[in-house]
Amino acid sequence: MSGADRRYNARMLERVLAWIDTQREASLQSLVEFLKIPSVSAQPKHAGDVGRCAQWVADRLRAAGLEPQVRPTKGHPIVTATNVYQPGRPTVLFYGHYDVQPPEPLEQWVSPPFEPVIRRGAVVARGAVDDKGQVWANIQALTAWQQVAGGAPVNLTVLIEGEEEVGSDNLEHFVAANREELKADVALICDTGQFARGLPAITYGLRGLVYTEIFVTGPDHDLHSGMFGGAVPNPANALCALLATLHDRDGRVTIPGFYDDVQDLSPAEREEWRTLPFDEPAFLREQGLSAGSGEVGYSTIERRWARPTCDVNGLTSGYQGPGAKTIIPSRASAKVSMRLVPDQDPLKIVTSYERALRVRAPANVKIEFARHGLAGPVIVPRAGRAMQLAAEAVEVGFGVKPRLIREGGSIPVVALLRATLGVDTLLVGFGLPDDRVHSPNEKFDLEALHAGTRTAAALYQKLAEL
Amino acid sequence: MSGADRRYNARMLERVLAWIDTQREASLQSLVEFLKIPSVSAQPKHAGDVGRCAQWVADRLRAAGLEPQVRPTKGHPIVTATNVYQPGRPTVLFYGHYDVQPPEPLEQWVSPPFEPVIRRGAVVARGAVDDKGQVWANIQALTAWQQVAGGAPVNLTVLIEGEEEVGSDNLEHFVAANREELKADVALICDTGQFARGLPAITYGLRGLVYTEIFVTGPDHDLHSGMFGGAVPNPANALCALLATLHDRDGRVTIPGFYDDVQDLSPAEREEWRTLPFDEPAFLREQGLSAGSGEVGYSTIERRWARPTCDVNGLTSGYQGPGAKTIIPSRASAKVSMRLVPDQDPLKIVTSYERALRVRAPANVKIEFARHGLAGPVIVPRAGRAMQLAAEAVEVGFGVKPRLIREGGSIPVVALLRATLGVDTLLVGFGLPDDRVHSPNEKFDLEALHAGTRTAAALYQKLAEL
Repeated sequence: MSGADRRYNARMLERVLAWIDTQREASLQSLVEFLKIPSVSAQPKHAGDVGRCAQWVADRLRAAGLEPQVRPTKGHPIVTATNVYQPGRPTVLFYGHYDVQPPEPLEQWVSPPFEPVIRRGAVVARGAVDDKGQVWANIQALTAWQQVAGGAPVNLTVLIEGEEEVGSDNLEHFVAANREELKADVALICDTGQFARGLPAITYGLRGLVYTEIFVTGPDHDLHSGMFGGAVPNPANALCALLATLHDRDGRVTIPGFYDDVQDLSPAEREEWRTLPFDEPAFLREQGLSAGSGEVGYSTIERRWARPTCDVNGLTSGYQGPGAKTIIPSRASAKVSMRLVPDQDPLKIVTSYERALRVRAPANVKIEFARHGLAGPVIVPRAGRAMQLAAEAVEVGFGVKPRLIREGGSIPVVALLRATLGVDTLLVGFGLPDDRVHSPNEKFDLEALHAGTRTAAALYQKLAEL
Repeated sequence: MSGADRRYNARMLERVLAWIDTQREASLQSLVEFLKIPSVSAQPKHAGDVGRCAQWVADRLRAAGLEPQVRPTKGHPIVTATNVYQPGRPTVLFYGHYDVQPPEPLEQWVSPPFEPVIRRGAVVARGAVDDKGQVWANIQALTAWQQVAGGAPVNLTVLIEGEEEVGSDNLEHFVAANREELKADVALICDTGQFARGLPAITYGLRGLVYTEIFVTGPDHDLHSGMFGGAVPNPANALCALLATLHDRDGRVTIPGFYDDVQDLSPAEREEWRTLPFDEPAFLREQGLSAGSGEVGYSTIERRWARPTCDVNGLTSGYQGPGAKTIIPSRASAKVSMRLVPDQDPLKIVTSYERALRVRAPANVKIEFARHGLAGPVIVPRAGRAMQLAAEAVEVGFGVKPRLIREGGSIPVVALLRATLGVDTLLVGFGLPDDRVHSPNEKFDLEALHAGTRTAAALYQKLAEL
């Protein structure tokens, strides 16, 4: 890029940001419209709403000067859009999702989940921050570029799916089948968060995920615990005994080979995290806890960002109603998931997990497994040019330099884009730690929406210099 | 009792038995009427049916020559009845219950639970054997005595409650408040079974029961397993670890003092049980099992009848729907019950259990307990006169001598009658091991109904000789 082009783009960005500043109220009203569509991908009764939402996104991308398509899949549609390709410009692939988590439990919402309201400077609705609000910040930024300068100064490919909250089942095939069309120099995802209010962040690491279910069967029907108890295998007792073997006294996971491929934290990284302004007592208090927990020898941040886990997410067996029912249950099951860190391999881990539990199980119960998703852990190179440009963009948007952090969650598409398209992803998110993602009363802070929209606008200018 | 009286009663019994033989069909029709009343004590929608059932029982006791009363309680009514007291005769207290278990799951019934049908020589309906059929056998026997001889030759107190299936909450108070009225020389309960078809039994031992629930709380709301996993206590993992400590490798319960008061089995008793015609492979096959399980050093019958247990009856935590939900649950709970044997004390055991789990629990989770019922174990003296007379009655009814057995279940009223009235109970039951008590398609064999009615008639004659 020539110096003249760079100076021109920088001037344009000033005007784009000014436009965004004047359009705050209109932008919020558009987001409210977006949030009113109950695009709950998991619930068949909302299938029509999901389709309607895809069309709404396509319409808004067209208004931002892009050429959108609503692409059918075996499940919910994927929306793609491109601007007019101009040789010599870098290509940015923006990924987001327009579907949302189920809103239940409804009775815990202060206001209905699909009737957005503004409360304490935030818009409250299902999907507010995950991921409609952050997708909208990008569409609004592109609209601004369209209004002010006839478009952003990069080649753009937009990919917004409708099945992120149900495991992105059709995305892998779609990306593989459209590899050429989706090729890009860098990918951008806005589905993470700030480190804290006013401390914007770029996320360079994510944990992977192995989500499994184990079923233990004893007798082939529930038995009277008086007539049979003590003489037949109890699958609920057996399940508990099995799950209890998964950790040692130091909180380490006992699956053979579990830590073999785990990258040690460097002293520099540990020191960097140690100096983050993290109020641990407040963090624990917000979860109703007086003390943390976990692997011996690591801090709370290290445990969340850089150490693997093995957690029971659900338990089911026998009688769960009020009072007493005296049965030996026929079956017991548990949802068990593991968060993985670089360079753990999900398939290797899940295979070792299943084998270990089979070996440890008593012979008189039947063991079965189901897998509900595998995702690799992610590290984005911190020293790259894209990361530098993204940091500059965040500083434009928020007025302060971003922190480089990791997050403990998983965004499986990052590994998918790396594996299928060979592209690294910038994770630049605007949410706050207390946004109640996946919970009742999800919110998105209006200052974060505005600073995020400005950051997105700056990103599409900065990345032109890639 | 004089020899003349004894001979007279024996002649009357012959005529009573003959009357019973001629009334088989009419007796079955009355039982069918009884079974059609959906007296499900646990379900508020059936409260009216429970009351109607109490009245039905009272009417039938009046027809058998007794003076019945329907006595209100804070819950469902208790039916009592007496004959005209005659000094010098022993008093028999017959206890039964007219309420039934909920019929659910309805879809597993071959015919509707409250529309009795005859299938393969048995009447199929909820409550067929537990306990309506066995209560009815006694009312029919008393009716026969009334028809043939103007009444049975003993003083009678009948006590039939409507809350046995929901923990007999109001019975303890009722028995204590009516101690004088209920005083008896022996109690009789027909709520147990034959050892096998054609092998009638008198049960001289029952296990006790401690039914508890444990609640483990970590964070005060469900947390995202990516954002928090590894750094906060997981109550589901903690619960499994706790429950896994309850048994050692030999299947023995590790609660301190658990075995302190357990009576050892005598070599004679073990030998007696060893020679019972018990087809263990068939017993296991019927439960879908290839191998038994339990405390090392004991046979399957010993484990069921004479050894204490600790079984998980239900597990509840976190996400239990299809697929994946990545949460650290806020709470995990388990129903845990222990079957007790003589001379374990329920209160001592439950106290030690709760203390042990509190001590073993990690400091960063909250532990709470609920108790859903305590019942003491029971041994009836085998050598007593009442037992001898009951054995003779069974031989009259079934044509073969009964086995003396124990059962693994609990009938809390036996300990209650012992403690409050100082009376021992004869457990003479007519059910078969495959009667599906508490399960869909509960049944009562028609031959067992008939032999049981004859046995009951003989009991009211034999016990006159007490």
